[in-house]
Amino acid sequence: MSRIIRIAAAQMGPTQRTDSRADTLARLITLLEQSAQQGAELVVFPELALTTFFPRWLLEGQELEDYFEQSMPNPNVQPLFDRARELGVSFYLGYAELTPEGQRFNTSVLVGPQGQIMGKYRKIHLPGSVEPRPGAVYQQLEKRYFEYGDMGFPVIHSGPALKDAIIGMLICNDRRWPEAWRCLALQGMELLCVGYNSAAYDPNGGDTESAALRTFHAQLVAQSNSYMNACWSVAVAKAGDEDGSGLIGGSCIVDPDGQIVAEAATLGDEVVAADCDMDQCFQGKSKMFNFEAHRRPQWYGPITEQVGAIIRK
Amino acid sequence: MSRIIRIAAAQMGPTQRTDSRADTLARLITLLEQSAQQGAELVVFPELALTTFFPRWLLEGQELEDYFEQSMPNPNVQPLFDRARELGVSFYLGYAELTPEGQRFNTSVLVGPQGQIMGKYRKIHLPGSVEPRPGAVYQQLEKRYFEYGDMGFPVIHSGPALKDAIIGMLICNDRRWPEAWRCLALQGMELLCVGYNSAAYDPNGGDTESAALRTFHAQLVAQSNSYMNACWSVAVAKAGDEDGSGLIGGSCIVDPDGQIVAEAATLGDEVVAADCDMDQCFQGKSKMFNFEAHRRPQWYGPITEQVGAIIRK
Repeated sequence: MSRIIRIAAAQMGPTQRTDSRADTLARLITLLEQSAQQGAELVVFPELALTTFFPRWLLEGQELEDYFEQSMPNPNVQPLFDRARELGVSFYLGYAELTPEGQRFNTSVLVGPQGQIMGKYRKIHLPGSVEPRPGAVYQQLEKRYFEYGDMGFPVIHSGPALKDAIIGMLICNDRRWPEAWRCLALQGMELLCVGYNSAAYDPNGGDTESAALRTFHAQLVAQSNSYMNACWSVAVAKAGDEDGSGLIGGSCIVDPDGQIVAEAATLGDEVVAADCDMDQCFQGKSKMFNFEAHRRPQWYGPITEQVGAIIRK
Repeated sequence: MSRIIRIAAAQMGPTQRTDSRADTLARLITLLEQSAQQGAELVVFPELALTTFFPRWLLEGQELEDYFEQSMPNPNVQPLFDRARELGVSFYLGYAELTPEGQRFNTSVLVGPQGQIMGKYRKIHLPGSVEPRPGAVYQQLEKRYFEYGDMGFPVIHSGPALKDAIIGMLICNDRRWPEAWRCLALQGMELLCVGYNSAAYDPNGGDTESAALRTFHAQLVAQSNSYMNACWSVAVAKAGDEDGSGLIGGSCIVDPDGQIVAEAATLGDEVVAADCDMDQCFQGKSKMFNFEAHRRPQWYGPITEQVGAIIRK
């Protein structure tokens, strides 16, 4: 059986705070249709794809509530699910989740070609802070608005829907943490989908990180972690200027050698697609990164035994 | 106190099986002197710098014995230690170690400016195989000739010798394993030194890996792991054609943003140097990669609990 999946990275341009839900959903459906026209079987959308990146503001009340989805799908997003099912296309979608119990997560789902939810992931590596940084024009308040993901790093056995690919999901900052990729690869992951909203400046308040440097970082971690885990990755941005706050683009599809095979050229709504052969993972998984043959976990204890760096003089 | 260390990557060209120990040591001393002329306080030499990369052959008897050092320093290498002390230069040196108890390791030492051994590391991620691959012209028999390193991943608190830098060492294939970097970074590592001998073709017998691709991989893992651990790295090759078997070059010095600041241009003996400010690690260690604030080790269990990938359908 051929295990080539044609995958589209559906980058989104900016979504402003005043943009309507309906307009944003219409953009997603357009991107989905463009992807299908390019033959895509799987479309990867960004993190928090349904709204602006609201953690940049200190919010409360109804505006904050309106950024969260109380179920998935729900009437606001049903047209996207319906159109994808008509086209027989699977998709990754990031959104803000409010559970029936009142928990809030930064979440993604993988939706299969019949509209079924094949898997869910809740972001574990929340960046930013709980309290706003005094004097900052833009905040990074993910630790305020979301709980840490509580599902670990599950993989999805896609079965016939997607050529039996073993698929992992991460969200934005997670992709900078090699532990996250490794936990997925230790379950045989062949394809990693990750959406992001990454500031085009230092979101922690420094002045040493340019948009070019931060785009380099975003691609570097996708490339190297794909290589070191012998998997494909599809990393997709929400990009451009959201209410004065810049987001990098650089959405890309990366092969198991860490090479970029398709890359967005703009900071707007843009689809790039590539044929991704899951069997290309075999070289790395059986040789250089044959974990069974070469890993030495008896020496990796500090990775799970401690949180921060411990400096013993 | 300024924490800028001027560091040289002292790449070596090939060392043939028939080259004399004295000739090879003379080359190392020349590279040391060239590094000192460029102002280097620390010189990083390759893995197994004193000999050819002998694990490519199935060997026994006296030739094999002669590749190992029974102490460090020893009369064969004393002139290098003496010259370094005269110049006040520290260095990283890789060599094959035979202990008094008869254990064999692929080892590196960090030698301080007074010739003192400041730290030792024994390679943990041995690549290759115990038994020769039938029909292969060149083998990769590190698992035959060496035991797995038994010292874990110790860091060196360099004190006044090297601006109080916290230094880690890895050897060759170790650098492709993010666990190794992380165990060092969890001890505050600011500078990683790693020597390598990496084949310019697939050492596992495939035909899909070119010298260019393998050089890309070598630099990719140095860059990304420097970034993800907010540390400098100095990765140094033995390069070129050793008795018909090609080795990649690509020696480089990488800053904590993952950017290459100096890079070898040849496959021969070549020194490149750069000023490496240890305080540049602070941005990453205190913000994006503030481990205490952002790591979630309760979800990293598989990294230490299992060796190979486990595929649960």
